[in-house]
Amino acid sequence: MSRFERPNIAQMQGYTSGEQPQDGRSIKLNTNENPYPPSPAVAEALATFASEQLRIYPQPDARALRQAIAEHHGVSIDCVVVTHAGDEALRLAVTTFVPPGGVVASTEPTYSLYPVLTQIQGARMVSQDLAADWSLPADFAETVNRAGAQLTCVVNPHAPSGQFTAISRLEALAKALQGVLLIDEAYADFVTTEGAADASALVQDLDNLLILRTFSKGYSLAGLRLGYLLGHPSLIQPILEKTRDSYNVDAISQAVGLAAMQDQVYAKQTWQAVRQDRDILAAGLRQLGFDLPDSQTNFLLTQVPSARSAEQLYQALKDAGILVRYFATPRLRDSLRITVGTPAQNELLLQELRQILQS
Amino acid sequence: MSRFERPNIAQMQGYTSGEQPQDGRSIKLNTNENPYPPSPAVAEALATFASEQLRIYPQPDARALRQAIAEHHGVSIDCVVVTHAGDEALRLAVTTFVPPGGVVASTEPTYSLYPVLTQIQGARMVSQDLAADWSLPADFAETVNRAGAQLTCVVNPHAPSGQFTAISRLEALAKALQGVLLIDEAYADFVTTEGAADASALVQDLDNLLILRTFSKGYSLAGLRLGYLLGHPSLIQPILEKTRDSYNVDAISQAVGLAAMQDQVYAKQTWQAVRQDRDILAAGLRQLGFDLPDSQTNFLLTQVPSARSAEQLYQALKDAGILVRYFATPRLRDSLRITVGTPAQNELLLQELRQILQS
Repeated sequence: MSRFERPNIAQMQGYTSGEQPQDGRSIKLNTNENPYPPSPAVAEALATFASEQLRIYPQPDARALRQAIAEHHGVSIDCVVVTHAGDEALRLAVTTFVPPGGVVASTEPTYSLYPVLTQIQGARMVSQDLAADWSLPADFAETVNRAGAQLTCVVNPHAPSGQFTAISRLEALAKALQGVLLIDEAYADFVTTEGAADASALVQDLDNLLILRTFSKGYSLAGLRLGYLLGHPSLIQPILEKTRDSYNVDAISQAVGLAAMQDQVYAKQTWQAVRQDRDILAAGLRQLGFDLPDSQTNFLLTQVPSARSAEQLYQALKDAGILVRYFATPRLRDSLRITVGTPAQNELLLQELRQILQS
Repeated sequence: MSRFERPNIAQMQGYTSGEQPQDGRSIKLNTNENPYPPSPAVAEALATFASEQLRIYPQPDARALRQAIAEHHGVSIDCVVVTHAGDEALRLAVTTFVPPGGVVASTEPTYSLYPVLTQIQGARMVSQDLAADWSLPADFAETVNRAGAQLTCVVNPHAPSGQFTAISRLEALAKALQGVLLIDEAYADFVTTEGAADASALVQDLDNLLILRTFSKGYSLAGLRLGYLLGHPSLIQPILEKTRDSYNVDAISQAVGLAAMQDQVYAKQTWQAVRQDRDILAAGLRQLGFDLPDSQTNFLLTQVPSARSAEQLYQALKDAGILVRYFATPRLRDSLRITVGTPAQNELLLQELRQILQS
């Protein structure tokens, strides 16, 4: 520890991500990557990218990509800022709207990066437990407003449960909140009804709504670090013009992201495949005695069979070369979060679990 | 403006970068890019990068690149954190070490991003004027300590003057300061004596010294957004493990950066060419009546001939398709900052200036 660290930094723990082996040998069902490769258009964009172009600074606001995103969602370009993945989008929402000493609100459980970003900002996190069926509590807005939260983050579909909240419920929440509502739609592409989780139609009317999207999951580009925020122009403007780093999206990401976004046909094929694979995997897990709600994401949160330890199952799978996610928190310690893999990977997982449970 | 912006964000101005036309028609001598393309090894790394690799998250701490950087500077790997260009490195230094209400110190003039990052953090900037020859004032440490600065940023060689401060002077400064000293070595590769600006040998001994490096200039990779910080492990650790975004360097940048760093032969050729081109350009400008000190960077800060307006010269060059940088501040408003281009670009600039001055 350095004597120069700010006290809040010295006291905090950093974000713990899932394991990221790069050896290609593990079956990675632990960090919710899309099991299918990026579009062939991505390979093409990379292959034709002229390296000499890297000599100069990139287009500062990723204009062509911003425009394509705006058209994709049917909003104006001033409702869009492109970011260095969803992580930067979340950080910028905190930086721009939450003062040190302020309050960020979310649910419990939620994406574990939110409290980390809150601590870095020297702000305080207020969380309300989700209902037993993982839905938002009826008095969530009241709780958040009473706490004086400048920013409220809600993942939809929810991580890690996979539960989907209807847009109408979130619209009502935004209208009831005194601060900014950020809907983290990282997994929106996988919802059962295509487009059902896309709240972007609301951003031109509601001046306190931000929507986060990422290329990491739906477009199979976790390695690229590319995402964006949609929001009312008055919320986007200070992020675009003031708080983001001046050239926050590199030239290659701009080209590759544009190619991926323009190949909607391919993207939708992967989403549909994931939905089918998910339902087959869920049925297989239930046959083995796992208890899990339906998921609208590309992962399953599943309670392990009674009398079994989730942590031990996690470890046994890891020993067999299959990574899944285990969270040692009160509400999740009996569960595993399992990313939907390819059909072959899912089958291997089920086989391995069968063996472990029989031993 | 949004009613949800933090007051310090609402009141501030964003960073103003130089123009970044992407049409390839302008002669860009305004944002200090290397005039030579990146190494052929960069093209090779891009061409052989497998797009399927983008499906998964990148190696979280860019370990292979960190290791190569550590070896390049002869420091241990825990003295290195790789960043999304120098911009992120500067932001992280502020985030980690400067509390809201705290103080960042620098010189006047200096890199104009420092005050912007300071305002975002809700901190205060304290600046001391450089001496007439652009050197650090003798009482700089005293000024900074009296102001209680948690972080002091010094560019070496200096921007925008191009003046070089000996490492021994900066070592003494670090030892005299009560806070952290960040030496911004963005232009260090171009100093006249190879390696003379590399203060990295100090970081294992001094627990308050950070050194910023970027791939943007020396390695011709401004479009990639890649940089790094060197520092005492106690300063690097909170940045690496807490305050940076979890996957702050994408997979392509890790591969491309490694390729660029490993081709030192090529990089040194471009640095040597820039030094030679710089001296020829400086001589040409002096012949036209411009007054300029020797520069140890890849740009020249030059006073325009008396009775001429720097702003009008900037505009006349722009009308002719040549971009240079003009700063409307008291000390710089009689000067232009001109990036060293290719020999052909420099010759065109001189021809154009000759015509403008004769008209």
